[in-house]
Amino acid sequence: MNDDLLHGGALDRMQAAYPNAPTPWIDLSTGINPWPYLAGALPAAAWQHLPTVAAMQACRAAMASAIGAPESALLLAPGSELLIRLLPTVIAPRTVALASPTYGDHARAWRASGADVLETADPLAEAGKVDALVLCNPNNPTGMVHERSQLGQALTRQAARNGWLIVDEAYADLVPALSLAPMAGAERLIILRSFGKFYGLAGLRLGALLGPPTLLEATSQRLGVWPVSGPALAIGRQAYGDDHWQAETREQLAAARRRLDKILLDSGLWLVGGTDLFRLVRTENAPQLWHRLAEAGLYVRRFDYAPDLLRIGLPSNAEAERRLAAALSL
Amino acid sequence: MNDDLLHGGALDRMQAAYPNAPTPWIDLSTGINPWPYLAGALPAAAWQHLPTVAAMQACRAAMASAIGAPESALLLAPGSELLIRLLPTVIAPRTVALASPTYGDHARAWRASGADVLETADPLAEAGKVDALVLCNPNNPTGMVHERSQLGQALTRQAARNGWLIVDEAYADLVPALSLAPMAGAERLIILRSFGKFYGLAGLRLGALLGPPTLLEATSQRLGVWPVSGPALAIGRQAYGDDHWQAETREQLAAARRRLDKILLDSGLWLVGGTDLFRLVRTENAPQLWHRLAEAGLYVRRFDYAPDLLRIGLPSNAEAERRLAAALSL
Repeated sequence: MNDDLLHGGALDRMQAAYPNAPTPWIDLSTGINPWPYLAGALPAAAWQHLPTVAAMQACRAAMASAIGAPESALLLAPGSELLIRLLPTVIAPRTVALASPTYGDHARAWRASGADVLETADPLAEAGKVDALVLCNPNNPTGMVHERSQLGQALTRQAARNGWLIVDEAYADLVPALSLAPMAGAERLIILRSFGKFYGLAGLRLGALLGPPTLLEATSQRLGVWPVSGPALAIGRQAYGDDHWQAETREQLAAARRRLDKILLDSGLWLVGGTDLFRLVRTENAPQLWHRLAEAGLYVRRFDYAPDLLRIGLPSNAEAERRLAAALSL
Repeated sequence: MNDDLLHGGALDRMQAAYPNAPTPWIDLSTGINPWPYLAGALPAAAWQHLPTVAAMQACRAAMASAIGAPESALLLAPGSELLIRLLPTVIAPRTVALASPTYGDHARAWRASGADVLETADPLAEAGKVDALVLCNPNNPTGMVHERSQLGQALTRQAARNGWLIVDEAYADLVPALSLAPMAGAERLIILRSFGKFYGLAGLRLGALLGPPTLLEATSQRLGVWPVSGPALAIGRQAYGDDHWQAETREQLAAARRRLDKILLDSGLWLVGGTDLFRLVRTENAPQLWHRLAEAGLYVRRFDYAPDLLRIGLPSNAEAERRLAAALSL
């Protein structure tokens, strides 16, 4: 089995691998909002000119305001994935403790840097014991959340040994009350944010690193002066500034998630976690079920480290919900 | 004087610094084609989904074909500026020789990495003597070019001591016959390419690193799997595949450059170099002339390291040419 198919986001290859599946394909393999933010027309300069400092600052200000972070603690980047890869060139922890399971690139990036990586189901228990403690909040794919107070205590312990607390908040737009963004800028705290998931525009490549000034400056040296595209800055500014859309979207996603839960539960699946952008089910015959869904033109996420898990994104319309329910009841 | 104003690309700040200048402002401060490639409609997936491997490969294939490089030797990135910043995290030369003057970020990036940097007017004389030899071909801002045969000899000398030859071909779309792209993949050769300048879409952030497989793999680890935006991949694929537009654009830029030269020569300025996207003039009273042009709503490029030089981009229409000629003749 091709790894890329398992990992999601490779619809073109699924279509090639299952040429007889009914169309249109329904891609539930990612945790991306299927109802994207609809931006207004972009100024021609966003495409034609190098992004200006003013465009970057306007997007940064809108994002900082939306997530409740101090503007000066926020550095924009072309997606949080690139930041995950760059962090090991900016800080050099020898020991890293990581939530497990979680988004796999964290472990890969730290291992590639030569760090000694411990994967643990209880990362907070490692606070104060490692050079960097890494977790996603909410977690992907489990949906597990940590309260601010827990993370604040973990940060205190990490800071006491000059270690880092690194929190990947790729899904925190769904639950703003969990975010450490208001604390951004504090010593030894690193936060990663992602634009594309909640706003449904993953192709734009927009994300951010939040942290103390020296970390931001060192990372900015790696990214250069124009890392983010003009269209991403212009759309990000609009979307982060649109409180009304954000509030409506949270309601819309929660409602869609409730409908998805009903489909999954009605089909007898065991729901073990998730967020309002994806659900996680555990089933002994996950590989067979994945294959059956693929034959029905439905693409969901499998995990090489957990063959009994499937992650399922939100169907974007009633027809997609119907096809998912039908395929699950076969 | 604010550095950003001198360096170009900060029209918003120029407008603030010279509030009484006539409008519209004419921005001649960058070497970006003022007649951008007009792309067809983008698929919604380019915005909404994570960029697929297929989208990346299609853009890469079109670029490789356009510049005459082997596809396997080409890695796409969000602009060559970010690549300039990342290279020191991938290779670690202790001694670097750089053409001078040239695009300033090369020297800054290598110095920041701790390398011993020699800036020289005759970089090829350093071939075989340093761990990395860096030049721009054509050079910015002088427009100086090196023939392929000269660079081939320099590469041989560099390779013989396990050193690198790094050629920044940001302006090579103007003169394809100079490009080392057909040699890409050769040991010890690194080429940087930029999309935005020739295609007039600098806001998109698209560029490439060309080099041997181990270098590409190491750089790819830094960039992650989705470094380039979906819109950039879709537009890059179209533009690099449009031979007709490329040929017409080379003619259009050359004709505009000839008109610009006439304006500059008629005003008595000493033309000392450039490419078909910008011209370089030397004049004793460059700071005063820069200020006078700014007061007339014309923004050109100054150089902190050479107070007698001005770089002037292509006026995009007859009215801009007329205003430039008028301001120069004051």
